Parts: sequence; C-alpha cells; structure tokens
Amino acid sequence: MKMLHTMLRVRDLEKSLEFYCGFIGLHEIRRTPIGDEALLVFLTDEEGRYDLELTLNHGQTEYTLGDQYGHMAFGVPDLDAVEAEVKRRGWEYWPSRPELKSRYLFVCDPDGYDVEIIERRNARR
Amino acid sequence: MKMLHTMLRVRDLEKSLEFYCGFIGLHEIRRTPIGDEALLVFLTDEEGRYDLELTLNHGQTEYTLGDQYGHMAFGVPDLDAVEAEVKRRGWEYWPSRPELKSRYLFVCDPDGYDVEIIERRNARR
Repeated sequence: MKMLHTMLRVRDLEKSLEFYCGFIGLHEIRRTPIGDEALLVFLTDEEGRYDLELTLNHGQTEYTLGDQYGHMAFGVPDLDAVEAEVKRRGWEYWPSRPELKSRYLFVCDPDGYDVEIIERRNARR
Repeated sequence: MKMLHTMLRVRDLEKSLEFYCGFIGLHEIRRTPIGDEALLVFLTDEEGRYDLELTLNHGQTEYTLGDQYGHMAFGVPDLDAVEAEVKRRGWEYWPSRPELKSRYLFVCDPDGYDVEIIERRNARR
C-alpha cells in the first residue's frame, strides 16, 4: 500500500496554481479532464513521491469549508525567506508557538485551506 | 521544498487507528502531545516519504465536515482483495466509474472523510 495523493476541491484553478506552484514550489505533472464535469490537476514536489490533486468542478464555486479537515504541510530549508515572501505579498499568517520545538508558519491558500510551512534544514523529519 | 504531511482532525483516535493502520495498512511513527490540548499521531506507509497526521483535540468532538476537502488516496496491488475486505466489514463503498481507465473504490473513514483506494499493480503512477 502506498500513500498516493491528497485531493482538494478548488474554486479558481489559476489562483490555486499560482499559490501551490508559484509560491509553494510544486510543479504540475498531469491534467485529467473528467468529461465536461471536472478537471483534475496533479502537482508534486522535486521528489515526486506524493501528489496534490486539485479538482475543479466546472460550474461549482460554492462549498462548505468546515473545520474538520486540517492542512497540508510543506518543508523548507529557510523559513525566514518564506516569512519575508509572505510579508511581501501582504498575507496574514500565524507564526510558530514559542513553546513548541519546531519552527513553522501557517497561511491560507486561495480557498481558505490552512497550509503549514515547516523549517526542515536537512533531514526529512 | 518537500511535501511532508496531511493533517486530519479526528474524533475517536482508536477508531481512526483501526481504520488507517488495521485496514489501510499505515503504521504509527510518533506521537506528540500538545500539552493538555491535543495529541498528534503521525502515520506513514512502507516508503515513509509522506505522513498522515491525526489530530485529536481533547474535549472536542463536534466539527463541520463540509464538502470542500476531497480525500486522501492510497494505492494497492489488488483492489479485488480490498473490495472483498470492505464487503466483509459490511461497509458502504463506491466503485470505479466504468468510463474511467483506473480501478478504484471509495470508502469513508470513521470521521466521514472520503478515502480513495486505487489499484496500482506496479508503477508508482
């Protein structure tokens, strides 16, 4: 059994691609249209071991986000650089809680999903 | 930048572990208590390249699931065996749409999150 992907429904594909590719640094690996119904766009990182599947349901832009789904997390070698870029873009963000060991920040993607960016200087975990 | 994990909030950790470890086949790699507030449990697959983080917020069991978050997907070599196990457990499931190339099924985890199980005989994708 292999972990393959996480699927998120998005409302504006171009905004999502700018966020996940332009800001986070993923790249697109394929697009799969589902008839006239939907478009699936798969993104991955440089290792290509896991994907983010963005689903654009044509003609549907209203969803209930809820508070039960949590977030996806991405590791970066230099959190300060990410924080500077977040500030440059004028985005709201939530910094690390000082009592915790790890350094991270949270931002929201264009659909309001929380996204965690964690400093990982070397190791995978 | 590396894809690290997907976090889901769960209401009953034991039920979630039975589903994601006992049924899906993930294994636990660590637990991190956040004071008296929450417990984080990290699961991964045999490759260990990506994690599922289960968050149990103590004292909170009511969430709004919504319909915007999609699902996580797991690849298995033999979907028929999974389907037989799903039937044995008496779970409702949704089979592949015949017009699509891939073979898969969807079930719900104990919190109502959709989970996709896809047949992947050899290749990663």
